[in-house]
Amino acid sequence: MSEKAIYLDHAATSLPKPESVITAVTEGLRHAGNGSRGAYEAANWSGERLFRARLAFSRAFAVGDPSRVIFTHNASESLNLSLFGAIPPGARVLAEVSAHNSILRPLHALAKQRGIQVDFVLPRKDGRFFIEDFAAALQPDTRFFVFSHASNLSGNLNDLAAFGNFAHEHGLFFIVDAAQTAGLVPIDLQAMHIDCLCITGHKSLLGPQGTGLLCLGPGVELEPLKYGGTGSHSHSADMPEDYPDHLEAGTLNTPGICGLAAGLAEIQSQGMEQLFTRGLALAKMFYEGLREIPGIEFYGDYAETSARVPIVTLNLPRMDAARAADLLSTEWQIACRSGIHCAPRMHDFFGSSDRGSLRFSFAASNTEEEIEKAIQAVKILANLEE
Amino acid sequence: MSEKAIYLDHAATSLPKPESVITAVTEGLRHAGNGSRGAYEAANWSGERLFRARLAFSRAFAVGDPSRVIFTHNASESLNLSLFGAIPPGARVLAEVSAHNSILRPLHALAKQRGIQVDFVLPRKDGRFFIEDFAAALQPDTRFFVFSHASNLSGNLNDLAAFGNFAHEHGLFFIVDAAQTAGLVPIDLQAMHIDCLCITGHKSLLGPQGTGLLCLGPGVELEPLKYGGTGSHSHSADMPEDYPDHLEAGTLNTPGICGLAAGLAEIQSQGMEQLFTRGLALAKMFYEGLREIPGIEFYGDYAETSARVPIVTLNLPRMDAARAADLLSTEWQIACRSGIHCAPRMHDFFGSSDRGSLRFSFAASNTEEEIEKAIQAVKILANLEE
Repeated sequence: MSEKAIYLDHAATSLPKPESVITAVTEGLRHAGNGSRGAYEAANWSGERLFRARLAFSRAFAVGDPSRVIFTHNASESLNLSLFGAIPPGARVLAEVSAHNSILRPLHALAKQRGIQVDFVLPRKDGRFFIEDFAAALQPDTRFFVFSHASNLSGNLNDLAAFGNFAHEHGLFFIVDAAQTAGLVPIDLQAMHIDCLCITGHKSLLGPQGTGLLCLGPGVELEPLKYGGTGSHSHSADMPEDYPDHLEAGTLNTPGICGLAAGLAEIQSQGMEQLFTRGLALAKMFYEGLREIPGIEFYGDYAETSARVPIVTLNLPRMDAARAADLLSTEWQIACRSGIHCAPRMHDFFGSSDRGSLRFSFAASNTEEEIEKAIQAVKILANLEE
Repeated sequence: MSEKAIYLDHAATSLPKPESVITAVTEGLRHAGNGSRGAYEAANWSGERLFRARLAFSRAFAVGDPSRVIFTHNASESLNLSLFGAIPPGARVLAEVSAHNSILRPLHALAKQRGIQVDFVLPRKDGRFFIEDFAAALQPDTRFFVFSHASNLSGNLNDLAAFGNFAHEHGLFFIVDAAQTAGLVPIDLQAMHIDCLCITGHKSLLGPQGTGLLCLGPGVELEPLKYGGTGSHSHSADMPEDYPDHLEAGTLNTPGICGLAAGLAEIQSQGMEQLFTRGLALAKMFYEGLREIPGIEFYGDYAETSARVPIVTLNLPRMDAARAADLLSTEWQIACRSGIHCAPRMHDFFGSSDRGSLRFSFAASNTEEEIEKAIQAVKILANLEE
């Protein structure tokens, strides 16, 4: 990324990565043997780093047991592992329309392969979800609940503790997509009654692309998504029963996980709440700078009292989102994202399926000067014809 | 890894990684946006690097079409994707006993889930496989053939062109595990009639852990193993039909893939054949230095004319393999691997299932001095009681 670029696509991947993350990955590349597949220095180095990372994430998300922190390739893999690993044929699943394609496509495949039924709950005004609508959608045989902590389109942040209580009260197996929130907003797996917490490493956790986590609640058992070598119980044709080995086949991305652990440490040293508050303030500054533009359309609930993540999604009155994103990139070096953002049902709800939208997402590493430049650029585009 | 360590576990992961690989990963961490999920500089940077890497691997393995190079988490994922993606319920599969658990465990799961039948072919003396034994094991309904290019236990290298012809003649869908050979031995996907070429990035390709490849033959269609966002056809509840998107859900390990591409470039600049020849010469030096020890047992075909990869596996007359590996590590800082090496059926064949074995694996980056030290160390252990 060039020095002058203004990066406002943190919801797709965080940039720049902290120097401590880059250093940790480099250290991993220099030192990591194949963890748990040998007893010498380099293999032990990996084994120890992996364990320390599990312990750190277990504490960060109140998992309670580091062996129930599973390392994955990305949040999509965490979600696939949860959905395919937990949901049996014919089951009934409660879902909602802000779901990313990493939920929608597995559910669709499960409907075809296992005949599951999915009930999708719609939000109300401004894309806000209400628990009573989920309660109304419950069927006698509903056993699974897949829920997004925050929408990557609207930026609305849901009250996960309340939805967790709802899931618990109704005996629902609770799968949470925290791709937009892990590292940004506190998540307490046990207190929130979460069975599968699906996390990406390369967004708000500030880690490298190619890392993800799946944190499992106490007693949760999943069928593996992948089978293979674990360096343990090698005589058995089945995957080992103990976690994390049960769900981790093949060599892990140890250098990436070293970087991911460094990302968490960075957040903890800077203070997650401070980082979150600053990101939100920059998003709000951006929104306030644009809200009065005639004809501009925002997606999401921007009311003063509403819980949000630092995402602002909009459409301009007279310019296509893709064209606007191109111009912002070429003329101002502003990186934002146009399109469907892999959230087709939420776009359907907003009536923006044909147009897509222009999404700006912020982080504490952005500056007020950058936000000001972005506001001015969008204002100019708002006055242009296509 | 400390400076003085003698690393002889390249079959588990290559170490040290070339500086060019570390530099490329670092560059990826600094510059990579989320490829194909945006149209700005950082996203384009990723998209371009990913395409260039696909092109390089497509050429290296004669895939013919870069869009049929699929990036995976590791070879285990490549194998799971191939096996679960290709083999339908009730199918009959030809396999062999040198298979790694990354083949054995998926096949076992497929037998349970889809009722497939697997016929395992045994090797002959010294673990060598013969095509006529595979021909004899063919059943009228055999449609799939899963084969390891080289055994990670015996180090025997199979004639992939001949086995590819055999697969082709009998109309078998040919899945190849090249975890021990890709980057070391030439593989021509099209000439060898390979349908699924399963590759790890972090062994002989010198790339980072957390990378793998699946190269698909012309016309091969697989069911996805994971479903999710692809940044393309986002309105569809199905995965896109075009490759690689069809099989790549979620954010890729772009920094890792940058490193993997740098590993390939390093091999190409140093000369794959030269690297291979040197690794083999070091392995041979090690073997020759030890072969006269009374009571020492080697696993594999070490005849002068036999094709091998640079692996030497053995058991000492009076010392358990795990104990020997520990002593080699603590007393001489020699990294090698004891145990089953995730190859339980090959150990059964060799009659070494209870003991496991001690595996030394070499690379061109090792020195003659290191080999000499390792020989002396093993000689001392060979004269010790447990």
